[in-house]
Amino acid sequence: MSDTIEGRNPVLEALRAGRTISRILIARNIEKSGTINEILSLIKEKNIPVEYLEKDELSHVSRTGSYQGIVALIPQRQYFDLAEILSIPQKKQEPAFFVVLDGIEDPHNLGAIIRTGEATGVHGVIIREKRAVGLTAGVEKASAGALEYVAVARVNNISRALERLKKQNIWIIGVDQSGDIEYTGIDLKPPSAIVIGSEGGGISSLVKRNCDFLVKIPMAGKITSLNASVAAALVMYEVFRQRKNKVSG
Amino acid sequence: MSDTIEGRNPVLEALRAGRTISRILIARNIEKSGTINEILSLIKEKNIPVEYLEKDELSHVSRTGSYQGIVALIPQRQYFDLAEILSIPQKKQEPAFFVVLDGIEDPHNLGAIIRTGEATGVHGVIIREKRAVGLTAGVEKASAGALEYVAVARVNNISRALERLKKQNIWIIGVDQSGDIEYTGIDLKPPSAIVIGSEGGGISSLVKRNCDFLVKIPMAGKITSLNASVAAALVMYEVFRQRKNKVSG
Repeated sequence: MSDTIEGRNPVLEALRAGRTISRILIARNIEKSGTINEILSLIKEKNIPVEYLEKDELSHVSRTGSYQGIVALIPQRQYFDLAEILSIPQKKQEPAFFVVLDGIEDPHNLGAIIRTGEATGVHGVIIREKRAVGLTAGVEKASAGALEYVAVARVNNISRALERLKKQNIWIIGVDQSGDIEYTGIDLKPPSAIVIGSEGGGISSLVKRNCDFLVKIPMAGKITSLNASVAAALVMYEVFRQRKNKVSG
Repeated sequence: MSDTIEGRNPVLEALRAGRTISRILIARNIEKSGTINEILSLIKEKNIPVEYLEKDELSHVSRTGSYQGIVALIPQRQYFDLAEILSIPQKKQEPAFFVVLDGIEDPHNLGAIIRTGEATGVHGVIIREKRAVGLTAGVEKASAGALEYVAVARVNNISRALERLKKQNIWIIGVDQSGDIEYTGIDLKPPSAIVIGSEGGGISSLVKRNCDFLVKIPMAGKITSLNASVAAALVMYEVFRQRKNKVSG
């Protein structure tokens, strides 16, 4: 699935801004102009696949109806702004429920976290820009369609994002085996953000210091950590269970 | 990590039987014999990597101490027999706790399930021979070492395996969204086997008929199923929680 950018100036601007464009569809009978010539030369320069279509074929692709003979297909996923994500709980009139990922690298894990997030009513997922996987096709696939419904923001500094969450009276709850409370032993009904660390190193120490609580997941065996998407799922489902039951955790 | 086959006849037999051997280590000063010559010719024929080591280096690799100058390294994982797995709860004097996988195909999922199983005290994992992933290197990696501690049996017929479990008074609990009980609303303290279906199709209808209960996982969103390793983890942790707390579920 793709989003579209439609019309001469929007497409030209997208090309100039260096946005990722997977394909450009142009009406066979398009009227040449300075803008179109510039577009065509940028397409060539950037080596973007072009397809010429009949006008009525193109009108099927258009989502706006005013495409001026040109439509660019872009990878669907756009990140949300942190501010946008932060406004979602209020709109839904629910206590905030965010998931913050401090460096998930495996697309399977990110996809599965988004999938579980969608199932448990997470308002948004905040991911890290560096040393972390973004919203790739692999993530989209692993999310099994959930990415359509879950807002994802990408920030370059997780600690700073947590500070903004705290200003909105959101509790920051890190999932870390050094925690002294079990995840089922903490009240998760107030506005909360669940922080999950990277597959290799867990939550970074700076981010850990920004957590209000560290909760651990009990483990009976010799292995000392769970898969990141499993750990995230257990805590997300605990939030979901507590809020659904509306009984003190 | 590898297992070893040690000594002249065992190595010769392994070669003859066509077992997967990743490398063969031979003492530099080994005394040639008919058996050794036969081993060397089979090694050559099968194109197996050979390394010549000093005697004391080789003795570090040996796990038995009686290796007669030759050690074969084999991929570590051997499947357990169903009967072996069934005897584990009794040995541990615990109510049975098995996980039965009706066609997991993704190594990430199988590895993560084994990892969570190790953390929650699962006695054994039963997997399907056909249209399912076996204990590959990818699974080993995704299990993060847990495969060392979890017994895995591979059976060609899941329904028949479930019948054997039932004869041991083990409840068969399928995780399926068509279930009418939530997974947190069933008593999981008695001997239980948790059945998880395949990523694409869930539990097959024949296997479903062999379940004593079908439990569902509540989901609040539009997506209708969770990642298989996440679903398995939620139910395994519910078993673990109920048994740890010893309060009726």
